[in-house]
Amino acid sequence: MNERQRARRPGGRSARVGAEVHRAVTELINERGYGNFTVGEVAARAGVADSSIYRRWGGLETLLTDVALTRLNAQSPMPDTGSLAGDLRTYAAQVAREITGPDGLLLVRLAVALSSNGQQGQQARDDLRAERTRQLQCMLDRARERGEHAPDAFGVLDHILAPMYIRVLFGMELTPDYVDGLVDRLL
Amino acid sequence: MNERQRARRPGGRSARVGAEVHRAVTELINERGYGNFTVGEVAARAGVADSSIYRRWGGLETLLTDVALTRLNAQSPMPDTGSLAGDLRTYAAQVAREITGPDGLLLVRLAVALSSNGQQGQQARDDLRAERTRQLQCMLDRARERGEHAPDAFGVLDHILAPMYIRVLFGMELTPDYVDGLVDRLL
Repeated sequence: MNERQRARRPGGRSARVGAEVHRAVTELINERGYGNFTVGEVAARAGVADSSIYRRWGGLETLLTDVALTRLNAQSPMPDTGSLAGDLRTYAAQVAREITGPDGLLLVRLAVALSSNGQQGQQARDDLRAERTRQLQCMLDRARERGEHAPDAFGVLDHILAPMYIRVLFGMELTPDYVDGLVDRLL
Repeated sequence: MNERQRARRPGGRSARVGAEVHRAVTELINERGYGNFTVGEVAARAGVADSSIYRRWGGLETLLTDVALTRLNAQSPMPDTGSLAGDLRTYAAQVAREITGPDGLLLVRLAVALSSNGQQGQQARDDLRAERTRQLQCMLDRARERGEHAPDAFGVLDHILAPMYIRVLFGMELTPDYVDGLVDRLL
């Protein structure tokens, strides 16, 4: 079955379009960086009509944050180990592994690009932050329901995630001891 | 005295060239973003020869970090208030004011650009970090010499600077209470 035949099959077409568009966006980000390509170029590379992208995502900013969230959720899903210390250590280690990898600064780059892209970009950036904060808060709420004393999501952002991001951004190493230390310090 | 006459005066020529080159770099960053201009374009705009720039700065990466450091030192000089709490609060408030301003993400943008610009870029980024860390450490050493108990420069980076940068990057407000709270928490 060739690509064309697959694209014509009705079942799962939406999922396939989604995957093709995500792949096209990821390639264009790697080749040109954020802010250096258009919806039309994504559509051409993905083999879909511009209008399909606008209908589904509204615009480039929303599409970019959708790609970022899908990636984050795949690479750093919120863990559920049964204890807050376990959850935070697992989560922090996942994030550390991700941001020290080859595309580690992807989220920082995206935030920078969205921040300087007018009101639509800023809205997309705020939505991205709100979604990840919501997921993090669920993990912390589970701990509270178990009777554990938990910080809020902003505490995790400020004192676990932010130091790791800034250290990677400025070329410093993240050792497992350092990452665990951030979690222990917060708890 | 016109521009040409001023440029011919021997006294202070080096300082004038420096100022013109810095101005040209700042304009090009604002117009095009990091990584989207060359030494030749800086030279043309500043009205100097390419070779003057290479002789003095070695390359674009070093020039960019020189511009950033000059700006940081002007806008957020290390304070000397006589107490560590006073120094850190003043410093944190300065940084907060700077990064919430119109060019607030300049340092983050520069770090992102340098990080993805090969070994020369990474070296320039590391030098920038080392220089600011050194200045911060001087402030903390003064506190130790007065007999105060001081965190190290990395504690300030991780738990005061990083949260502020990440919050601004993701579009959150920095209130004076929040900024003071970061300092109090670290001390």
